[in-house]
Amino acid sequence: MPLNKNRRIVLAARPEGEPRDTDFRFEVGDVPVLREGEVLLRTIYLSLDPYMRGRMDARPSDAQPIGIGEVMVGATVSEVVASKSPDFNSGDIVLSYSGWQEYAVSDTKHLQRLNPEIAPVTTALGVLGMPGMTAYTGLLNIGQPKEGDTLVVAAAAGAVGSVVGQIARIKGCRAVGIAGGESKCAHVREQLGFDDCVDHRSSSFSAELREACPNGIDIYFENVGGRIFDVVLGMLNPFARVPVCGLIALYNAIEFAPRQGWAERLMATVLTKRLTLRGFIVSDFLPQSGDFFRDMVLWLREGKVHYREDVVDGLENAVGAFQRLLHGQNFGKLLVRF
Amino acid sequence: MPLNKNRRIVLAARPEGEPRDTDFRFEVGDVPVLREGEVLLRTIYLSLDPYMRGRMDARPSDAQPIGIGEVMVGATVSEVVASKSPDFNSGDIVLSYSGWQEYAVSDTKHLQRLNPEIAPVTTALGVLGMPGMTAYTGLLNIGQPKEGDTLVVAAAAGAVGSVVGQIARIKGCRAVGIAGGESKCAHVREQLGFDDCVDHRSSSFSAELREACPNGIDIYFENVGGRIFDVVLGMLNPFARVPVCGLIALYNAIEFAPRQGWAERLMATVLTKRLTLRGFIVSDFLPQSGDFFRDMVLWLREGKVHYREDVVDGLENAVGAFQRLLHGQNFGKLLVRF
Repeated sequence: MPLNKNRRIVLAARPEGEPRDTDFRFEVGDVPVLREGEVLLRTIYLSLDPYMRGRMDARPSDAQPIGIGEVMVGATVSEVVASKSPDFNSGDIVLSYSGWQEYAVSDTKHLQRLNPEIAPVTTALGVLGMPGMTAYTGLLNIGQPKEGDTLVVAAAAGAVGSVVGQIARIKGCRAVGIAGGESKCAHVREQLGFDDCVDHRSSSFSAELREACPNGIDIYFENVGGRIFDVVLGMLNPFARVPVCGLIALYNAIEFAPRQGWAERLMATVLTKRLTLRGFIVSDFLPQSGDFFRDMVLWLREGKVHYREDVVDGLENAVGAFQRLLHGQNFGKLLVRF
Repeated sequence: MPLNKNRRIVLAARPEGEPRDTDFRFEVGDVPVLREGEVLLRTIYLSLDPYMRGRMDARPSDAQPIGIGEVMVGATVSEVVASKSPDFNSGDIVLSYSGWQEYAVSDTKHLQRLNPEIAPVTTALGVLGMPGMTAYTGLLNIGQPKEGDTLVVAAAAGAVGSVVGQIARIKGCRAVGIAGGESKCAHVREQLGFDDCVDHRSSSFSAELREACPNGIDIYFENVGGRIFDVVLGMLNPFARVPVCGLIALYNAIEFAPRQGWAERLMATVLTKRLTLRGFIVSDFLPQSGDFFRDMVLWLREGKVHYREDVVDGLENAVGAFQRLLHGQNFGKLLVRF
């Protein structure tokens, strides 16, 4: 089989703040050699996700940092192009963790064969994949939605936020999104069926969020951090739950503006309102993946959950797309098509 | 029955920061008139507790503020001195909520008859009362102690903290206290049986706490806030639980020093360590009062829980004692004996 060279993007330097172009390096190398029990994978789609920013730092996180010179990590939808495993054949489409590169060899124990008859294969990176399960497990386990609760989620047009609000609606909640710009807000209201969506760029954001939540907030699904949480904090009801899933507003920060008394206000609010704040990552709830998959496939078929993809063509455009993602300039689940 | 005048302490002004003597007013009034179904109570012991500081403020809390001119609130052990209720007789000793005064009339539905044969009646204000149940419910429900966990509690010589650590030991945890001064620390280690206790006034407090917790911290029972929590935050293990019970270090604060990045560090730690922070007050767990009472009476009898009382004589000394309590200058459960 005639193979091209392997094109890949590696971490060239640890970013200080915003990841710059020079923090990545585009390389062309040999396609790795296949050994017994392994498969050779060609990437079809690469998922770009905010967590990748944390993995570029050396500081301890919930996972190992990417080493300098190592391929940037990431989930992919890949095709098996050669197999020395009895379990997979050439032509199989799988969910893999190949990273930002065209070819990868892999043992087979973490591969998952995808069935395009259940749903388009890209959903394995979005609504039926890690982002969807993040929304599902964080909302149900920590958010504990009850009929009549008001849920607020930021980045509501994004891969996780969009699913959080739609599941909350299924559970009988009022779902209020926060997104950047009117076209995203319109999408969240009209295509995703949230009860309301507020533009955080609006000069009257705080008043608009209050208007959208006449009964306060019972669940705030935290994707963002920063200024939005400041506003939300004053609107939380007694016994509100705050699943802390991400803090994208902080990922690029080097210095923080001193905010006098904010930490004290947070702790005092936790106490007097008897809030629950709980951080999680999706793997904390791995045993629930069967429940998630069963429910989400059903909801997709019933038309109760919708999703939107933002597809960028070409590995050479991955860095720019990732930089835009960190500024919320994507519109839907961000994918790179090879 | 010849009755004295009723001596009482009312809220004269809302404190700005530290409660000053002039924020309280000592009054002498008539003993209230008894109506059908009520009892007249004479206070024997008044409990002084940190939560009272919050009730002096007008800002919303988990309970109604005390009105200007109203008697300061508080739990009491009282004697029934006259009864127009079939349920109580003169001479009965009851747990009441008479406040900072010598006499009160009360309907009988919130009164609880105390049996001195079970335990000294003062324990109804401490280890067998609200402080003990706060420790029990917060630790068991939110802290979820498991064998081998390390628990840290500040104000470890106080009414709540002392019980938290002793229950943690019963549940198989390593219990580490934080207290102010060597005599309190010695008491916590020797009389209360904590594994260790660290003096937060020590110049090497942070290093000493690390040494006392070689395996990090799995449960931090938050009584205090401020600088101690800053140090603890960096020592919390993945999946640590933080019951937020009180923030005495903040109660008198008017302005806070700006702490650059602290709020962001807190939220980032919640996320990456998957912490649970949850505020509570004891009444959230009211249905567990039977379990609490049964367990605690047993532990007292078995000598597994010890307690210490700090008794001040005379209502006229209540204000000074309360001011000292807010500076951690009490040593054990603070009571005013009438």
